[in-house]
Order: sequence, then C-alpha cells, then structure tokens
Amino acid sequence: MDRITSRKNPVIVHIRKLVSDREYRYTCREYVCEGITLMEEALSAGMEICTVIWSEDHEIKPIHAEDQHEVPVELYSYVSPLKSSPGPLFTVRMPVSDVEGKIGSAIILENVQDPGNIGTVIRTANAFGIGSVVLAGSCADHYSIKAVRASMGAVFRQRVDIVQIADLRSFAGSNLLRLYAAALSEKAVDIRSIDCKGCAIAVGNEGGGLSSELMEICEGKVIIPMTLQAESLNAAVAASILMWEMRRREK
Amino acid sequence: MDRITSRKNPVIVHIRKLVSDREYRYTCREYVCEGITLMEEALSAGMEICTVIWSEDHEIKPIHAEDQHEVPVELYSYVSPLKSSPGPLFTVRMPVSDVEGKIGSAIILENVQDPGNIGTVIRTANAFGIGSVVLAGSCADHYSIKAVRASMGAVFRQRVDIVQIADLRSFAGSNLLRLYAAALSEKAVDIRSIDCKGCAIAVGNEGGGLSSELMEICEGKVIIPMTLQAESLNAAVAASILMWEMRRREK
Repeated sequence: MDRITSRKNPVIVHIRKLVSDREYRYTCREYVCEGITLMEEALSAGMEICTVIWSEDHEIKPIHAEDQHEVPVELYSYVSPLKSSPGPLFTVRMPVSDVEGKIGSAIILENVQDPGNIGTVIRTANAFGIGSVVLAGSCADHYSIKAVRASMGAVFRQRVDIVQIADLRSFAGSNLLRLYAAALSEKAVDIRSIDCKGCAIAVGNEGGGLSSELMEICEGKVIIPMTLQAESLNAAVAASILMWEMRRREK
Repeated sequence: MDRITSRKNPVIVHIRKLVSDREYRYTCREYVCEGITLMEEALSAGMEICTVIWSEDHEIKPIHAEDQHEVPVELYSYVSPLKSSPGPLFTVRMPVSDVEGKIGSAIILENVQDPGNIGTVIRTANAFGIGSVVLAGSCADHYSIKAVRASMGAVFRQRVDIVQIADLRSFAGSNLLRLYAAALSEKAVDIRSIDCKGCAIAVGNEGGGLSSELMEICEGKVIIPMTLQAESLNAAVAASILMWEMRRREK
C-alpha cells in the first residue's frame, strides 16, 4: 500500500470529483462509500471495489482490492465528505446492468431530492422484497454517498430503475403492474381498500407532491389516511408504509 | 425592530446557546426553529414566540412578537445552524406541561440519537393520531432545531413524554397500554397477528436495538417481517410502520 500526501494526487482528485460530481460518477461508473460495515456489505454482495483510502489513524483491515492507499489524517478529512468518519473511504464499480427481468411490485419516487430519503426507501424496499425502486423526474442520485449510507448497503442488492415520466406507463405495462399515485386528494382511495400486490405506487416530493404529468398516467389515486390536522408524511415514511402494504398481505 | 450587528450582543449569544446547549434550552424553557412555514405552524398551534431574528436579505413578514431584530447577512449565518436557510430564526416557549390525561396508544423510542428520526416519528405520530411519542433512555432532544424541522411543526401539536426506562411499566400500566418490544428475534410475534390498538411499542436505536432492561419489562416481542437478506429498517421507518399498524384497524 502506498502513501499519498498531496491534495493534488490524481487519486485524491478523482475521489473528490466522484463525491461531488454526479455526471463524472456515471462517466466513470464508480461511486464512493465509507465505512467498514458498508465495505463488508459491498463485498458480500459481490461488488467490485476499485480504490480504498485509509487514514493513518485507522485500524487497517486487510481486504482484496488492488488500489489501496494510506493518507495523513488531514488529507483524509479533505477527501472525505463525512464528518468524524470511521473510514475507510472506498469506491465501488456500478454494475453493468441491474435492470433485468420482470418485477412483481415497484415503488416510484418522483423528484425526491433528499439523498437520505432515497437511501432509506431503497433500504425498506430491500427489506420488503419490492421488485424495484423507480426514480422518476429529478431525484437525488442513489449512488451519492449520503444515499448509499442511508441505504445501509441495500443499494448493493436492491434493483433500482431510472425511468423518464413519459416512459413510466410502458414500464408498468411491460411488468404487468397497475400504476397508482399516492395523493392527498379527497378522490383518492384508502390504501387499505385496494390490493397492493402487483402495483407500482408513485410518491412525490415533500414540497410539491406528484406532478400532474405523472398523476395523469396513473389508473388511480391512493391515500394513507391521516388525522385532519396532519398535512403529509415524510416521503420515505409514506413510501415505506406503501411498500409495507404491498408486502403485508403475503405470508 | 432594532438592528443587531455584533456577535457579542446578548440576544445572539442567547440564541446560539439555545441551539447548541440542550440543558440551557430546558433551563430557559425555550427552543429555536427556523423558517416561515414553521413559524406559521407554531402560531396556529398557539405557541408563544419569544424572539425573531430576520436577516437583512429576508422579506420580512409582520408577525406578533415583541422581540424582533434585524441582522446583517453575515451575522445571520453566524447565528443560524442551518445552511442556506430561508429564515427567519425564531424561538418558541416550551409549553408548561404537555403531559396530561390518558393516552390510547404510544410509540416508545429508546436511545434514538438522530434528531431527524425523532422529528420524523413525531410527524408520523401526529398524522396517525398516536397518543404519545415516549422518549426513553438517551434520545436526541425533540426540541433540537433538526428534530423540530424534521417534525414539520408536528412537535407543536404532538404529545411527547420523556420517561425513564424504570418508569415505563407504570407509565404503560396507568394508561392501560400493553407494552411490546419491536425486536428482530425469532421468538417475536408477527406484528400482523396482534391487535395493535391499546399498545405501546418500543423501538430501539439502529446500532444496538433495545436494551435488555427495556426488553424485560415488555409483555411480548413483535417483529415486522422482512426478507432474509435484510437486517433491519431505519428506526423512524420501523416506528412509522408500527404506528400505521396501530392506526390501520380504525376506520
């Protein structure tokens, strides 16, 4: 393992750019994660680990990755976007294609900007055996370091599809899924009264809810009934309850 | 409205201490919130607003609060803990007592450290009409600015009880609530098979789950069934699904 001491070292420049620049992440097909637990999750899920950065104050655990480096504490803080990280920082190769086969259920997120919410939804989807987490519109990147962390490694195992809103209908159709919109309107049907199996349910972002473009292609609206004083639920909570409803009737 | 320009002004010192020092917050019985939406929520919930800080680049909306101040942009960034806040910063008086009367259901959080999770659980509890959010052990403060923000103002309306673990049993007993522990053990009963009405269900923190001290005083363990590969859910998601189960059977 070599030692890097300069902020201008190409490895450091590369990783910082992977952290901050979404487009670069997809060009390189590589993303950044942090922590031993996530690294173990990545390895057990068969992910390819590209580069590992250890701080000199870390307890280094031997792993099989060709490109490993040790850096001074100060340089580690410079390259890591997380405060008080246990380390190490490492990069993972995006799988060539995680979009294969038919799915039996899906949760759709539209314009959900908070990477923590994206990661949390992926984690719940994986826990409940949901076929796919579909990101529509301009969602936060599920390969951002915050989303990966919130997913607790589920991002390594959960199928995620990025689908344009205009293509959602054919996506649902080809998977034989009924498309529903989670909405707070009075015309929406109580989620308890529909059979959620075989559904794809769309959840909007907190500020604006779902776009009318997406609403229009859905065959119905569903609502999680709430008390009168409540306006809405956190997007990840709403999505998680909907996924639980999909899962709930299976024994 | 006066103008403050010094970091040493007592109002600035006071607010910064309220933000960072939990004990000081309870000594003053005052906490800090941010944003017009939250301010409107606080006013409509009948909260007393003590002090308001507007940045000079804010569009100032007139509200009824005696103690209002305008500050330069730089000073606003100094006093506000949030990045790119829409403002204003304001403080709210803690109610004298929000612990009154019997409750019909409760969610208990033990040692949940993330203020965002605390706020999210309070938001969901309020949406589902849960009697109380009980904070046991060493949870994050529900009056911290991040928890208040995640609650989206539900903290102004939702009953929250802070209960020592040793007192949980009598708390549940005096409210005629059955006490359950959410656990990932094989002996736990599927949440779908119990009647969640009239229950208080405890959820532990992500790292460690529930303490054995708390487990022992519960009359049973419940589990949200998951796929084999999943280890756990986000604490706020698990609590929200349990609250939904409490709510679910009511029409």
